[in-house]
Amino acid sequence: MNDSASVLPDFDAVLAAAARIAPHAHVTPVLRSRSLDALAGCELHFKAEHLQRVGAFKFRGACNAVWALDDEAAARGVVTHSSGNHGAALALAARTRGIACHVVVPEGAVAAKLAAIEAYGAVLHRCAPGIAAREAACARVQAQTGAALVHPYADPRVIAGQGTAALELFAHAPELDALVVPVGGGGLAAGCAIAAAALAPRARLVLAEPAGAAETAASLRRGERVTEFVPDTICDGLRGTLGEPNFALLRRHAAEVIVVDDAATVAAMRLLWQRTKQLVEPSSAVALAAVLAAPQRFAGRRVGVVLSGGNVDLDALPALFARR
Amino acid sequence: MNDSASVLPDFDAVLAAAARIAPHAHVTPVLRSRSLDALAGCELHFKAEHLQRVGAFKFRGACNAVWALDDEAAARGVVTHSSGNHGAALALAARTRGIACHVVVPEGAVAAKLAAIEAYGAVLHRCAPGIAAREAACARVQAQTGAALVHPYADPRVIAGQGTAALELFAHAPELDALVVPVGGGGLAAGCAIAAAALAPRARLVLAEPAGAAETAASLRRGERVTEFVPDTICDGLRGTLGEPNFALLRRHAAEVIVVDDAATVAAMRLLWQRTKQLVEPSSAVALAAVLAAPQRFAGRRVGVVLSGGNVDLDALPALFARR
Repeated sequence: MNDSASVLPDFDAVLAAAARIAPHAHVTPVLRSRSLDALAGCELHFKAEHLQRVGAFKFRGACNAVWALDDEAAARGVVTHSSGNHGAALALAARTRGIACHVVVPEGAVAAKLAAIEAYGAVLHRCAPGIAAREAACARVQAQTGAALVHPYADPRVIAGQGTAALELFAHAPELDALVVPVGGGGLAAGCAIAAAALAPRARLVLAEPAGAAETAASLRRGERVTEFVPDTICDGLRGTLGEPNFALLRRHAAEVIVVDDAATVAAMRLLWQRTKQLVEPSSAVALAAVLAAPQRFAGRRVGVVLSGGNVDLDALPALFARR
Repeated sequence: MNDSASVLPDFDAVLAAAARIAPHAHVTPVLRSRSLDALAGCELHFKAEHLQRVGAFKFRGACNAVWALDDEAAARGVVTHSSGNHGAALALAARTRGIACHVVVPEGAVAAKLAAIEAYGAVLHRCAPGIAAREAACARVQAQTGAALVHPYADPRVIAGQGTAALELFAHAPELDALVVPVGGGGLAAGCAIAAAALAPRARLVLAEPAGAAETAASLRRGERVTEFVPDTICDGLRGTLGEPNFALLRRHAAEVIVVDDAATVAAMRLLWQRTKQLVEPSSAVALAAVLAAPQRFAGRRVGVVLSGGNVDLDALPALFARR
């Protein structure tokens, strides 16, 4: 982690990120669905981050981190560890600046996502599963190359970048009563918390978390960060451990958590596919699953929902759909 | 078939349809994909009819037919036979006018599509598979109710309505060199032929047809309509037999046909899902498959591609993906 990790990003950092990534990132559309509104009993505004470059919001944070580097640091490239979308996002972000990108990937990562990372021109470094092996491999690459580490979610530049998704959503739909965001490591969640606090302080921030990796719920309940758990969920983007700055920001902004099991997530994913014709991944569908799991909390409200990504491993679909 | 079927629709009919359906149908977006452009070696402009109401272009023709009826005829309702999207489209179109809709459906039709038809408020009438059984069942419903028959693709009002998809596409992208459209019964193809002839007479009209139901290719080659064949394709929207007025219009407009096998269609569908995150059905993906099958015909050109629908039977996915 670099030095700046100890400073929590603020709304100015989100605004700066928005300006920095504007030449490279898409302003994604906000989608509506009459039939899903009817089903949920509320007004759903879906921020379509699966239509972001690389198919996930992750490009925002990666792009902000890459373009925040000074020229000298940038020339040495960037490195990260990521089982998926962040790796692809950093690879593409590095390409927009013409610098090298190294990605440490654990054994067992989703094949489609690794292929995407390589296609964007990054160098892959394989390592054993587990956060310790990842960090050791990253440290080796840093020592060899001088590349700047861009952590997938705990980096303040990454958090600020992810917050631009909520910035755009509130600009488009300023009257939201609630914002529902998937939570894994907490980059998107913490960034959205900053934007929500500044732009819609009365809106509830609701985190959607898979039951098989519900350490954010546990951490906020206990008032201290829970890091000892073995994730078991189909939401491959949400298996990371809540980061320290992420935890601090989510506590400060009084985020609520709704925990949903994988069966509910698959059912919500099927609904999104059928009703909106948008191919979102399980880690996105968990947010709609949360709304459907607690209808009384959202009844009649205007609810923003971040569809975080669309990088589905199509070869794994039969197994996925068998999970109902 | 009602009397008007003997008159071929013209461009004025397409313009009239556009005005008639405007209060009810969506103007669908035109989507682009850098990575698919690179793969295909041409500039692809995807007309996103899977985002049309009921998830398919079929709503255009059905809506035009329903709103073209005089009040007296409309009061007796409408009837059709359809294994899928046209049934749902007519049901919703009838609902927009507050009239009854009867849909004759053959045994073996896709479950998800039948559920959609019922959800839009139509009365289902089941019959044996095969066109003779369908037409007999339709005739019975007509005799009992006085409902107006709206044929899925041979009705001139339906053809004119489907042509509005191409009308919108050419308005959005007037410089297209080619337009690629899936062909089954030929409603969309014939309607697009009319619009293309009027708006882009130099653009090539290319029909994409599954090898397991390639009677349009055979019909145009022989110069007479081929009706004896047993369809065998995953493209459930393209199993119908080319209609008479459809054949006449496609001949007149010198449509070319590219025939592709189901494996190529599934591969193209996977590409569309992965690269655009849009859930299109096999009957849509056949159009991209045709472009990829004949790259020399499209190299460097601006190519319109109609993504005709997105009503995928998710329960059938594992079997579908096994077809590669």
